[in-house]
Amino acid sequence: MKLASLKEGRDGSLVVVSRDLRRVCSAEGVAPTLQAALDNWDDCERALQALYQQLNRGDHNDTFAFDPHSCAAPLPRAYQWADGSAYVSHIELVRKARGAEMPPSFWTDPLMYQGMSDGFLGPCDDIELADEAWGIDFEGEVAVITSDVPMGTAERQALSHVRLLMLVNDVSLRNLIPGELAKGFGFFQSKPATACSPVAVTPDELGRHWQNGRVHHRLRVRLNDKLFGEPHAGTDMTFGFDRLIAHASLSRRLGAGTIIGSGTVSNRDETTGCCCIAERRTREVIDTGSASTPFMQFGDRVHMEMLDEQGLSIFGTIEQQLVPYKGPGA
Amino acid sequence: MKLASLKEGRDGSLVVVSRDLRRVCSAEGVAPTLQAALDNWDDCERALQALYQQLNRGDHNDTFAFDPHSCAAPLPRAYQWADGSAYVSHIELVRKARGAEMPPSFWTDPLMYQGMSDGFLGPCDDIELADEAWGIDFEGEVAVITSDVPMGTAERQALSHVRLLMLVNDVSLRNLIPGELAKGFGFFQSKPATACSPVAVTPDELGRHWQNGRVHHRLRVRLNDKLFGEPHAGTDMTFGFDRLIAHASLSRRLGAGTIIGSGTVSNRDETTGCCCIAERRTREVIDTGSASTPFMQFGDRVHMEMLDEQGLSIFGTIEQQLVPYKGPGA
Repeated sequence: MKLASLKEGRDGSLVVVSRDLRRVCSAEGVAPTLQAALDNWDDCERALQALYQQLNRGDHNDTFAFDPHSCAAPLPRAYQWADGSAYVSHIELVRKARGAEMPPSFWTDPLMYQGMSDGFLGPCDDIELADEAWGIDFEGEVAVITSDVPMGTAERQALSHVRLLMLVNDVSLRNLIPGELAKGFGFFQSKPATACSPVAVTPDELGRHWQNGRVHHRLRVRLNDKLFGEPHAGTDMTFGFDRLIAHASLSRRLGAGTIIGSGTVSNRDETTGCCCIAERRTREVIDTGSASTPFMQFGDRVHMEMLDEQGLSIFGTIEQQLVPYKGPGA
Repeated sequence: MKLASLKEGRDGSLVVVSRDLRRVCSAEGVAPTLQAALDNWDDCERALQALYQQLNRGDHNDTFAFDPHSCAAPLPRAYQWADGSAYVSHIELVRKARGAEMPPSFWTDPLMYQGMSDGFLGPCDDIELADEAWGIDFEGEVAVITSDVPMGTAERQALSHVRLLMLVNDVSLRNLIPGELAKGFGFFQSKPATACSPVAVTPDELGRHWQNGRVHHRLRVRLNDKLFGEPHAGTDMTFGFDRLIAHASLSRRLGAGTIIGSGTVSNRDETTGCCCIAERRTREVIDTGSASTPFMQFGDRVHMEMLDEQGLSIFGTIEQQLVPYKGPGA
């Protein structure tokens, strides 16, 4: 099934979206918000599925057209956003470009940071930031939304807690990262609000393309309407979501609605391109000695989507423009 | 005014607590949860204040006794928890003990990490963790809860966004920290659930003891009923909450209900003791060459509270016991 949140109040209003992303019906009779549905999933799932089947059959008599511009993030605000960096060959590449060795443990022990979750951008929301000099970059990722996950959940139990999947654009401020990481406390100012695809889908929507805790489709990223990359999300993902969930829950329970990200999708095969500017710049440094692709400039537009075997969009499209933030008084 | 959340569902039920922490009345006629009140503060504040005045005068005819054991954290789950480390002399001390220089920028640029916010422990909840070998420690801190804060808020505007203050016990797993920080992505597994004082109070409750974005009272921490430290929270706090809020909002807006922590309260004057075991161990290393105080053992109990000039508790007491976590199936 496919779910979305229309822009309304702080948490949006829950709607069901048809498989072909054409029609929408309200789910407010089941749960007012996606968070409410996740809080009571066992009570809501069947009724939401019934709406979804009606919608797909054309049997629902109160539907309207799907418009991603009216969508907030599926969870406009969430209680937890834990982002992994599961495509380890990407990290290795970045290190290589700056002449640093990557610790071998990175192949066996996942990297994960705690991200801000109190405000996700909708799929078509502008990326508003004050300063191009921050080195503004996008990062195309796959993410899961979990049920409650007990502390100490084992990898083999973890995937049963995946309720939904979506795409995210983990906006990153590259020129703020070195200073923050040098302080030792991880990212904060360098990770502003993340954007989400308009639609989140249950794992069954992916069929056999959801396997081993990985999504086996390409993630297609365009910058200003030119293809920037389309690496395969199921390839070179060192840690599946099973491992990422187990890692996240070692010393804490995860509340329903926790979002866990894959990190920038990246393939060793460089002909697939990149899901973030930093990786392309890294390849340029390795190939030519210097980076030529600039970070995002005001006015730049980024698109992210994932197509199924029939070429249909699974999650809808993230399509955002970078615009200057005018300040708190504006 | 003083507010608390009784244990009920995922978000608790909002109550008003009398100034002397003796009587309680329901606030459900105003807002069902503290998050709901923060989301609509301008609509709720006056009605909550009216209940508080009635309660203090003894005019409310439907009250019951305050019992911290029935309290969840004021925000049982929150959308953001950003923890500073504003007592810089504490960091300097820790570095000194391991023979490392602290970068001078630490005196001018705040340290802050993104913490997990999807599940705060209530004031009397057990600290359940699987392994003493993780080096389990408490950290006594002061925290503020904000309104919506626009991106790019200046320090001079920041304190107008402080809605409430409380105490927190930022539980830390000292033996997991070096490995995580070496990976460069900050804390994750090493920062399990944080506990909060039973009561959160509006800034006016502190009178002249809330000044320059600092709380000018001592934080008293006991371990197994013995005084462990009572440093003054207004002394040696290098960055006030005004600066911490401005730092947090540089590249993001902060949603209503964002919790911002001071970091472990610490004074240069070592006779005031410590608010975490790590600091005492550091002092032992400097004084004697080795640390003698162990980290927490199962069965240990930690208390934290802050008293006003009359010796009355402002926020109620955090009183927690460390117990072994039996695993997800238990």
